[in-house]
Amino acid sequence: MVRNLKFVTGNPHKAREAMSILRELGVNVEVRILKVVEVQADDIVEIASFRAHRAYEVIREPLIVEDAGLFIEELKGFPGPYSSYVFKTIGNEGILKLMKDVSNRRAVFRSAVALHDGDRVTVFIGETWGVIAREARGDSWGFDPIFEPDEGGGLTYGEMTSDVKNRISHRRRALEKLASYILRTSSLNI
Amino acid sequence: MVRNLKFVTGNPHKAREAMSILRELGVNVEVRILKVVEVQADDIVEIASFRAHRAYEVIREPLIVEDAGLFIEELKGFPGPYSSYVFKTIGNEGILKLMKDVSNRRAVFRSAVALHDGDRVTVFIGETWGVIAREARGDSWGFDPIFEPDEGGGLTYGEMTSDVKNRISHRRRALEKLASYILRTSSLNI
Repeated sequence: MVRNLKFVTGNPHKAREAMSILRELGVNVEVRILKVVEVQADDIVEIASFRAHRAYEVIREPLIVEDAGLFIEELKGFPGPYSSYVFKTIGNEGILKLMKDVSNRRAVFRSAVALHDGDRVTVFIGETWGVIAREARGDSWGFDPIFEPDEGGGLTYGEMTSDVKNRISHRRRALEKLASYILRTSSLNI
Repeated sequence: MVRNLKFVTGNPHKAREAMSILRELGVNVEVRILKVVEVQADDIVEIASFRAHRAYEVIREPLIVEDAGLFIEELKGFPGPYSSYVFKTIGNEGILKLMKDVSNRRAVFRSAVALHDGDRVTVFIGETWGVIAREARGDSWGFDPIFEPDEGGGLTYGEMTSDVKNRISHRRRALEKLASYILRTSSLNI
């Protein structure tokens, strides 16, 4: 049984989603709301890994952090690692304006989950490909209403129930890799 | 005479511009090209200050770093502290698309120069207000071709000679404050 693993985040939406996925995967985590300094990098793996180290300096217990981003092909990966800042400023409306009259609408949501086990950091990546919708649909958080995953039957993340989204989401895929790593790593003293 | 102050940057354009301004202000600096990890924050003062501490850990000599951003009122400050990433991805074209049919075109370029004198960090801010042009004009770097400073007689930063730009720029204003601080601070052992 996995005990005492903390999920460190400053984002309650993310916490709720991750808790629900991890519970189903047999991993118990406790949420610890903590805003950790973030590094500027074009790569979410680097950002998550840096934050895991920082968070460990503060709480000194095994923990995970998660970083995610929406990478739009035609916009050279924008908004990518800065998705949360871009959402707060130009929002879905801004992204739709940038994508107006753009035919290549391919995009990928990426999640990087970084585990600090007390000794070192291991990062797990999840990806879900899809397209940027022509208009926002659904009322979830972040860029969910403008992202139609390929496996979503034409629905955006925002139009799905959380159960459906959590079966195909980038975050689910990263957390599955984390869960199977934890469950098979007997050396992990957590 | 001020000696041995390093200007630490990963951006040669910025280095050239800052050197030329500082020389004129009577401050000699030596450029040290070094990519320092950047923090994600919505505030360039915090970013510059963090980077100055980091850079000092590496070079252990008095130094300055500079961070700058273009803050567009109608876009809630976007691209702000992430200007360099936004430039690399959606570029001037993206900003112009976001500003299409937007009547409030007010924007400010901000520069934060952080000095680490060996003991502590002091940050100097420079601002230049203006408007976002309707199209890119001139061929300078970054967002220069789409920013018309109020004192620019209708020219964009990109259309100005570097001498003219360096008289009114945000970077000039921050560096002037730095220079007058250095020149009057006899306690500064640099």
